[in-house]
Amino acid sequence: MIKEKITQAIDILKEKNVDAWLTFVRESDTVHDPSLDFILGTSCTWQSAFIITQEGLTAAIVGSLDVANIESRGCYGEVIGYKESIQEALHGVLQKLDPQTIALNYSTDSPLADGLTHGMYLNLMKYLRKTPYAKRIISAEPIVAALRGRKSPTEIERIQEAVQLTLVMFDRVSDYIQVGRTEKEVAAFLKEKVKEARVELAWDPDYCPSVFTGPESAGAHAGPTDRTIARGHLMNIDFGVKKDDYCSDLQRTWYVLREGEAEPPDDVRKAFDTIREAIQLAAARLKPGVEGWIVDDVARSHITSAGYDEYPHALGHQIGRFAHDGAGLLCPKWDRYGKMPHEKVEAQQVYTIEPRITLKEFGVATIEEIVVVTDSGCQFLSDPQKEIYIIKE
Amino acid sequence: MIKEKITQAIDILKEKNVDAWLTFVRESDTVHDPSLDFILGTSCTWQSAFIITQEGLTAAIVGSLDVANIESRGCYGEVIGYKESIQEALHGVLQKLDPQTIALNYSTDSPLADGLTHGMYLNLMKYLRKTPYAKRIISAEPIVAALRGRKSPTEIERIQEAVQLTLVMFDRVSDYIQVGRTEKEVAAFLKEKVKEARVELAWDPDYCPSVFTGPESAGAHAGPTDRTIARGHLMNIDFGVKKDDYCSDLQRTWYVLREGEAEPPDDVRKAFDTIREAIQLAAARLKPGVEGWIVDDVARSHITSAGYDEYPHALGHQIGRFAHDGAGLLCPKWDRYGKMPHEKVEAQQVYTIEPRITLKEFGVATIEEIVVVTDSGCQFLSDPQKEIYIIKE
Repeated sequence: MIKEKITQAIDILKEKNVDAWLTFVRESDTVHDPSLDFILGTSCTWQSAFIITQEGLTAAIVGSLDVANIESRGCYGEVIGYKESIQEALHGVLQKLDPQTIALNYSTDSPLADGLTHGMYLNLMKYLRKTPYAKRIISAEPIVAALRGRKSPTEIERIQEAVQLTLVMFDRVSDYIQVGRTEKEVAAFLKEKVKEARVELAWDPDYCPSVFTGPESAGAHAGPTDRTIARGHLMNIDFGVKKDDYCSDLQRTWYVLREGEAEPPDDVRKAFDTIREAIQLAAARLKPGVEGWIVDDVARSHITSAGYDEYPHALGHQIGRFAHDGAGLLCPKWDRYGKMPHEKVEAQQVYTIEPRITLKEFGVATIEEIVVVTDSGCQFLSDPQKEIYIIKE
Repeated sequence: MIKEKITQAIDILKEKNVDAWLTFVRESDTVHDPSLDFILGTSCTWQSAFIITQEGLTAAIVGSLDVANIESRGCYGEVIGYKESIQEALHGVLQKLDPQTIALNYSTDSPLADGLTHGMYLNLMKYLRKTPYAKRIISAEPIVAALRGRKSPTEIERIQEAVQLTLVMFDRVSDYIQVGRTEKEVAAFLKEKVKEARVELAWDPDYCPSVFTGPESAGAHAGPTDRTIARGHLMNIDFGVKKDDYCSDLQRTWYVLREGEAEPPDDVRKAFDTIREAIQLAAARLKPGVEGWIVDDVARSHITSAGYDEYPHALGHQIGRFAHDGAGLLCPKWDRYGKMPHEKVEAQQVYTIEPRITLKEFGVATIEEIVVVTDSGCQFLSDPQKEIYIIKE
């Protein structure tokens, strides 16, 4: 897969007309540049430079003791070891290639394209002082965004498997949820299923899964509490697994019937249906070329025009090796999202769609689905939740 | 433990006379600033600022959906949520505190103090433009170095437990090593022991453990190969476990007797003894106040004056939550180590000591021990290897 992704990176460099992509790292087990998962697949210790050019040349410059490990992978045409300083070998390679543009992994807006630390940036600038290369530096954000975003069939298959496994676990937890059980108990049940399936949680175990029952629950990204499930609660779970390095991230909503109720009250049903419709409307608008904020706006407007508050977050994010992956978001034009809302959707990207409505009296209604962008639209990788799940007692 | 470490951080800020320490991060599960393990202990999603002052004030500014999770930890006096941009809340806190120095997590020399990405640095500079604070920025390297380096009794106890467990596993693998087994088989045996003990490997499973048998083996930091153990081989293993978040990192050396040999040849014994002596001499020199390069030089000179090549790496590194932890190294004054060789040793730091000699005919002799620095010297946390381990067949 590393070789596949390096080949894809070369194609992307050609497409974006960037001469060279330089990933500059050290002690990669401590502060880990996430691009390494696509172009290295192992660790390095000392200051290391991984260079890929649009002409298809690949070179790794690494500490002498790392040479054997990197060479054994067979992913770099040239592996150069150094003992005292990387500077000379780095100059040598750059002089030979003479790239007019050198893309580095920094980005103000995309966390996953921002793997270069500030200290390593300063080191590189020191090495490139008095060379022409310091002025040829650009951000690798478009390269990283394309490389992470455009999934290969293998990558899509892995996400699909994580999604299907998660849906099975949601079915299982539906039978477990009952009045009197706590958020923590429900979370522990799901964590046990994850262990049994020998997969990992998709994000921090502190809030994967998140479980929220009833009004005034802790709100997204909080961990489960000792709050007990009670009649009249809207309940939701935000949960994902990582299987073969690829993640799912889904949400489902339940309602616990009150005494004498045969179905959820109209307010609950209406909120749930508004969420469901918002997802379908957004999916219908999601296709290559559209800017992310437009898709967000479709869902956001549907919810606000039905009289609800807007959700305080993005409609959706990409998913991949991380639950939050890739660059472009389906998000409003808020400052905290930088230029992400203006990124154009591309085929083979995988997005979540996850609007939310809070009902003061009942709790939170939210569904999160996962779709893959096709050449002309998108396809659901998750089987969308059509009806609110009912808990009778 | 987070609260303990935040208290320690406040003391360190006073000692170094730094007004405020600002950790500025986002999506902390993707690119993870290792300082968060000491001052947060959970994840955050949007741009987040964690501020600790020498006057003992603590403030977290986080995306609104992260507030509940951070508040529930109870580690920050003030937790401020924002929806669209962190800028206003950040200005507010800085104006109130008016720090004369603001330490950020970047460092040209210390990877663990370099958790701030270059993109986030640029974002921060944008937010601080037109404020007096941009010019008050300094590197947090001395703070992070002290906070990670000076271990609490609990931290030392955890490292000790990881070390003892590793030594037990070395005993077990000694019985497993025999002529005809491969490096990969030996590594698999140790990995199985790690699973049985329900702990983790201390570094990348690609080369934890590293197993090297005989001459012309792959060299440090390479993974185990299909090379088989044979008579006349010097063999060594580099291995560590992570138990309760703290690591060990140890090396031991074996010799496989040739037909008719009752003990290792003189060349092997002499190299082993030179390594063993180098460790004891270095440990005798290791005490608070001494610069790292001096300790390295004691071992390096002992080895070169015995007629061997110098080892192509540092004598030792600190250990903690990572196998390579802290800042100061016991290393030569090579460019690749920046100013690390001049960092002064401090009490309560934990170091490895790991010189190496390569014998062209036999393989590599290397021992790695672990010591904790005391007020007047150092103590071994590992039981030092005194004799080369003998494999008879």
